[in-house]
Amino acid sequence: MSFDDTQSLREPPLKRRLRLGFVGGGRGGLVGNWHAAGARLSNHWNIVAGALSSDPDRARASGEDWMIAPERAYSDYREMARAEAAREDGIEAVAICTPNWSHYDIAVAFIDAGIHVILDKPMTTRLEDAEALVALSRRAGIRLFMTYPFAHHAMVRQMRHMIRAGDIGQIRQVNVEYLQEWATEPPDPTIQGRAWRQIPEKAGRSSAIGDIGTHAFHLLRYATGLELAELRAEFHICGAPKDLEDTAFVNLRMKGGVPGLLWVTQAAPGQYCGLRLRVWGDRGGLSWDQENPEALKFAPLGQPEHHILRGTGGGVHPAVEQLVHLPRGHGEALTDAWGNLYAEMGIAIAAAVVGHPLPEDFVELPGPEEGAEGVHFVYACADSHEAGGNWVKFSRS
Amino acid sequence: MSFDDTQSLREPPLKRRLRLGFVGGGRGGLVGNWHAAGARLSNHWNIVAGALSSDPDRARASGEDWMIAPERAYSDYREMARAEAAREDGIEAVAICTPNWSHYDIAVAFIDAGIHVILDKPMTTRLEDAEALVALSRRAGIRLFMTYPFAHHAMVRQMRHMIRAGDIGQIRQVNVEYLQEWATEPPDPTIQGRAWRQIPEKAGRSSAIGDIGTHAFHLLRYATGLELAELRAEFHICGAPKDLEDTAFVNLRMKGGVPGLLWVTQAAPGQYCGLRLRVWGDRGGLSWDQENPEALKFAPLGQPEHHILRGTGGGVHPAVEQLVHLPRGHGEALTDAWGNLYAEMGIAIAAAVVGHPLPEDFVELPGPEEGAEGVHFVYACADSHEAGGNWVKFSRS
Amino acid sequence: MSFDDTQSLREPPLKRRLRLGFVGGGRGGLVGNWHAAGARLSNHWNIVAGALSSDPDRARASGEDWMIAPERAYSDYREMARAEAAREDGIEAVAICTPNWSHYDIAVAFIDAGIHVILDKPMTTRLEDAEALVALSRRAGIRLFMTYPFAHHAMVRQMRHMIRAGDIGQIRQVNVEYLQEWATEPPDPTIQGRAWRQIPEKAGRSSAIGDIGTHAFHLLRYATGLELAELRAEFHICGAPKDLEDTAFVNLRMKGGVPGLLWVTQAAPGQYCGLRLRVWGDRGGLSWDQENPEALKFAPLGQPEHHILRGTGGGVHPAVEQLVHLPRGHGEALTDAWGNLYAEMGIAIAAAVVGHPLPEDFVELPGPEEGAEGVHFVYACADSHEAGGNWVKFSRS
Amino acid sequence: MSFDDTQSLREPPLKRRLRLGFVGGGRGGLVGNWHAAGARLSNHWNIVAGALSSDPDRARASGEDWMIAPERAYSDYREMARAEAAREDGIEAVAICTPNWSHYDIAVAFIDAGIHVILDKPMTTRLEDAEALVALSRRAGIRLFMTYPFAHHAMVRQMRHMIRAGDIGQIRQVNVEYLQEWATEPPDPTIQGRAWRQIPEKAGRSSAIGDIGTHAFHLLRYATGLELAELRAEFHICGAPKDLEDTAFVNLRMKGGVPGLLWVTQAAPGQYCGLRLRVWGDRGGLSWDQENPEALKFAPLGQPEHHILRGTGGGVHPAVEQLVHLPRGHGEALTDAWGNLYAEMGIAIAAAVVGHPLPEDFVELPGPEEGAEGVHFVYACADSHEAGGNWVKFSRS
Repeated sequence: MSFDDTQSLREPPLKRRLRLGFVGGGRGGLVGNWHAAGARLSNHWNIVAGALSSDPDRARASGEDWMIAPERAYSDYREMARAEAAREDGIEAVAICTPNWSHYDIAVAFIDAGIHVILDKPMTTRLEDAEALVALSRRAGIRLFMTYPFAHHAMVRQMRHMIRAGDIGQIRQVNVEYLQEWATEPPDPTIQGRAWRQIPEKAGRSSAIGDIGTHAFHLLRYATGLELAELRAEFHICGAPKDLEDTAFVNLRMKGGVPGLLWVTQAAPGQYCGLRLRVWGDRGGLSWDQENPEALKFAPLGQPEHHILRGTGGGVHPAVEQLVHLPRGHGEALTDAWGNLYAEMGIAIAAAVVGHPLPEDFVELPGPEEGAEGVHFVYACADSHEAGGNWVKFSRS
Repeated sequence: MSFDDTQSLREPPLKRRLRLGFVGGGRGGLVGNWHAAGARLSNHWNIVAGALSSDPDRARASGEDWMIAPERAYSDYREMARAEAAREDGIEAVAICTPNWSHYDIAVAFIDAGIHVILDKPMTTRLEDAEALVALSRRAGIRLFMTYPFAHHAMVRQMRHMIRAGDIGQIRQVNVEYLQEWATEPPDPTIQGRAWRQIPEKAGRSSAIGDIGTHAFHLLRYATGLELAELRAEFHICGAPKDLEDTAFVNLRMKGGVPGLLWVTQAAPGQYCGLRLRVWGDRGGLSWDQENPEALKFAPLGQPEHHILRGTGGGVHPAVEQLVHLPRGHGEALTDAWGNLYAEMGIAIAAAVVGHPLPEDFVELPGPEEGAEGVHFVYACADSHEAGGNWVKFSRS
Repeated sequence: MSFDDTQSLREPPLKRRLRLGFVGGGRGGLVGNWHAAGARLSNHWNIVAGALSSDPDRARASGEDWMIAPERAYSDYREMARAEAAREDGIEAVAICTPNWSHYDIAVAFIDAGIHVILDKPMTTRLEDAEALVALSRRAGIRLFMTYPFAHHAMVRQMRHMIRAGDIGQIRQVNVEYLQEWATEPPDPTIQGRAWRQIPEKAGRSSAIGDIGTHAFHLLRYATGLELAELRAEFHICGAPKDLEDTAFVNLRMKGGVPGLLWVTQAAPGQYCGLRLRVWGDRGGLSWDQENPEALKFAPLGQPEHHILRGTGGGVHPAVEQLVHLPRGHGEALTDAWGNLYAEMGIAIAAAVVGHPLPEDFVELPGPEEGAEGVHFVYACADSHEAGGNWVKFSRS
Repeated sequence: MSFDDTQSLREPPLKRRLRLGFVGGGRGGLVGNWHAAGARLSNHWNIVAGALSSDPDRARASGEDWMIAPERAYSDYREMARAEAAREDGIEAVAICTPNWSHYDIAVAFIDAGIHVILDKPMTTRLEDAEALVALSRRAGIRLFMTYPFAHHAMVRQMRHMIRAGDIGQIRQVNVEYLQEWATEPPDPTIQGRAWRQIPEKAGRSSAIGDIGTHAFHLLRYATGLELAELRAEFHICGAPKDLEDTAFVNLRMKGGVPGLLWVTQAAPGQYCGLRLRVWGDRGGLSWDQENPEALKFAPLGQPEHHILRGTGGGVHPAVEQLVHLPRGHGEALTDAWGNLYAEMGIAIAAAVVGHPLPEDFVELPGPEEGAEGVHFVYACADSHEAGGNWVKFSRS
């Protein structure tokens, strides 16, 4: 069995769907539905078990919504880990879509049960937990993947390939912003998954940086391949009063002497999912906007701007075509990126299930190290902010 | 059991997925994958059987790709209809994604077997076949739905609600264009589903009008509610030589004295899925572009232009929210529209399965009459073109 | 003295400004101010005389606004023509910005006085007048230029150069639309230059076609170089009741078998100056939008879309650079196009003043033939409409 | 004589054009042509004298280009100041478009001669010179205006009016970026006005901040009315090697506790004049982009985004209409902003000439204090950068 770049993502090493369970994601949840949509769309997974809520009634009702057999609709994730590990047809992976503070305990329970783990970002709220998960998953031989869906847009992968190919020359400056509006006003208590993000006991040392800053940082790292050397950060509260930042300005020094800015806010009326990455080299520039994900703008120095559109041919790298499902112009967007992510994780976990290594040239899925790197990023930002915005050296581990 | 506009589409009248089969859609096919993606994403369907190709080897291999049990991977659709009708757990609906000329025979086979039908547009190549399907499906008590996915974008439904609510006043002019490039050069023989579209024996009396003209016409009809009174059409070959038109200019007279233009071409380099609808009333205008589907532009006379973005609140009609899955700015696109379509068809067919009527105020899914209307439209265009571009009265039936 | 493509438009054959007079354009006028802005910006002209209104008080007050010497602020254009022709320092050209029906008489008066003529479009309301002006100006050796300012945007000239250079291959289809909203409601009587456009006695055989259809037609002809063979037209009233059309659909057959559509409306809420030209060949497409005039979109078949931005280098043809005044990104728009037009007319009329021929390879300014062609276009559209939308052969003369 | 907001800018207190001279701006110059275009377009000025170059041959040739009488085409600005002050018909104002380091001496010469001064930004390279000019111009009763043309776009004024009216509530965050590409490669020695900007002896303590940072800072100050309390800055060289920064990241603390970012670079391939201002309050957001200057995007919290387009009505503040020359959609851009600026300076200087005060409610033209504030900004950025990016308190004077 071998993987190659041109092989369709739809060809997994198993001729069946993998069995997937969920912790979190039930009625009232936000991101669980996005994970589930990606899993279904990918056609690599059957969702067969879940602890969709810690409230038993809601867990049962949510299980019915998702058409999970009643005996596999758990209200306790520990019980779920035990029971599923004991079944012949138990789940082969679990998707954890609960609030951040619970990620560590849940992940440990499933790693201990020998079940592969799909973990929403950020990995954990405490750095020591993140580092423990790296060690634990490695020792247990468990595949743990982080879900940074924006990196699985076809045109983000195109950007990565173009940067690696030297299309913009040597990178000289980077800029990423992620702007939202929802924290302008006090959180709507009817939307689960909002209020806790602003409470230190739940969210940890940061709010906006942990929530969307980790996305922005991962996207920047993934697309450019550059590593972070140092940062300094200012946290602000620009929306309704709260105990953690809703806005952060982060100055970056990437290795190789490349300066950059990372800016996030959740208090910008009229901004919804404004994640935009711009990278300039000495021979050209590239920019991508999550709200217009089908076009990658490429400005080769001295030439007209090229708008590279998702599709086959027309400037799209052949290795990107495995992420292309609809013809050019027939729009794909975030749901499709989730589908790509679940397809790629499906291939990787199927490989593990049948005992194959993940080939070196396979798509680089974010694993435990990338998860921990995100938590390091949160800590470094908080450290800098608390020290008055001083430069802080960054280390991935 | 009752339906109402605000009920989530995710709550079907059955607490299980419906069993779906496919005819067509196997390896090399184009639109079958889009249907399947919509069915999976909707979570209303299990795809459990298929005659995915008329070539036995390809049918079997495609069945494996789709993880269909080998005994239900047929190479003959008639056998499939018979066998599935006989099974306790047989399919409850079939999706027909084959070339147009085969639609009629296949649909008849499944209607005769008592299986509900989901049919890719256009309904048939021959008008008498379309009319026969209307009569046959009605007589048999079978639900037959046409797949016009663009009408299931959330912001198209928003447009429809706003027009009905009188937000632009009395409609005074309509314009729809659908522009593509693929027929500029001779068809790539490696892409199934292209070459036959330009051959009269296969495609019938038209190429571009049958293929994308029916989409444009349905979208216009769906969003505005206006009926067509008369048309005149010119067919042109602007791309590589071929026996049917790749371009058509159609002048419309909608009932109520509203003039309009419908323009399609498949020979416009740089255009991919350029379906754009513009409607003006005496109090405002609305425009929507399939390649930027998240925004509906609304220009109330004398006020700034409003960009209504898919999401909840922010000017979006409550009845549209059932088509909203991701928060505003977290992009949905054509895959999500297919998901919406399969969800709505799932609810309607589940209602039939349990013996409930489809409530009157339910979303208006295009049924056999709309399918036949599309074929009438093709015929009327061809009639007008052949008569030198004269006005032709239009009748839906 | 010679002209060449790379010579700056700022280098006229005279080292002084030409003396320019205006008929029309005073207080309450609309287009006169645009002409005057272009003349001033170009630096080729001093505006020294005017019959800015036929109302003596308004003529005098308007003359003061424009800082015209009182003795040269006329209220009668015939007197102006006589008096200026008699002065040593009399005007060398007149810009006629009056309602269309008066163009002919005024132009004749100045031609008879030996003064060059700059004439707002359309040339005349009656075809015989247009033809008479062609003959008369030619016989008198007078330079008569029509003002179609949109053709003087830098990126329209770029489009023309690219089409001539074969960048999109053989032209196969053309499309031009010009959409406005002002005729949705009854004309505002306080805005001069609106109401008369809808009155047959004043506007002639058409309203929207004469007003903006001639712009659209000229732009199409100018950019593509294609000639019109036949047309058919439908006129509609989509806005408030009026006696002439506010909307027209025109099917075109360009020579060489190229089909096209020309569509104008002035009853489209939310549209202001929506003049958009799209041209497709067998190797690529080009599109330009007056409301975003700095970018020319070029889609070479099989490559990413190129956005060519006004400026020097970066894909801009060297011959276009004479229309480039500000660096790329430092926006130019319609005022600058008027400046370009007045600069080019300044060079051409200065050449006439010093007795030089207009070099053959000079920018092709629209002269009397192009003016008459516009009136032929109006007549052909009206003829077709009145005959029920039949095909009408088109002849420029 | 009184001014009011609704009075046309075209109605100056003098019924003649003011006499304007230029220092700098001759052949090979860059910004002089922009000033001259604004002066001509405004119709408030006659350009009658100039020291267009310090090279006598170029000064004479440039004078001919501009149609300045030979005896008033000086090669020495001191001689020009003396001679013009002595003439009955001498210039009433001078526009200084020379490199920054020469601004002070030239301004002093004309102030001493009693001639009003129009000065390109930044005011001076040395802070003491800027402060001296404030004192000197005040003492001499001379009007000195700085040219920040972007603030004279109609939709920037609209933004200012909306912010003052509370349309976005209390301002909570500001962001301004100004991105260009020209310093990516070594400066083209054939383009005057480029190379010196990167040489400390000529440009002073900064390059990009002095050049475009002052524009960005002025625009932010002008549109929001907020004052700067503190800043910290990092300078970077991202393009070809040079001795001054081509890129700067500036963190802002505006008075009232409003945080912000100001970011400039001239080493971003594909960026030309990318000046973009975004301001968020607790009730809405506003954003404006110089490369798309006709639209102001207004996002009132909870409502669709409004695109307010330059024109009359349609949400445009009545006081803005005096900057509106062409109807909505008939594009204005940077040339028109220069015209607006020269019109407003023309009214203000004409008022001084006839001895009228500048009315309090008149448009706030940037005077010597704003000029000095810009130099303070440059110094504060350089101070912070040199101190390792520390916070520096900001004082306007």
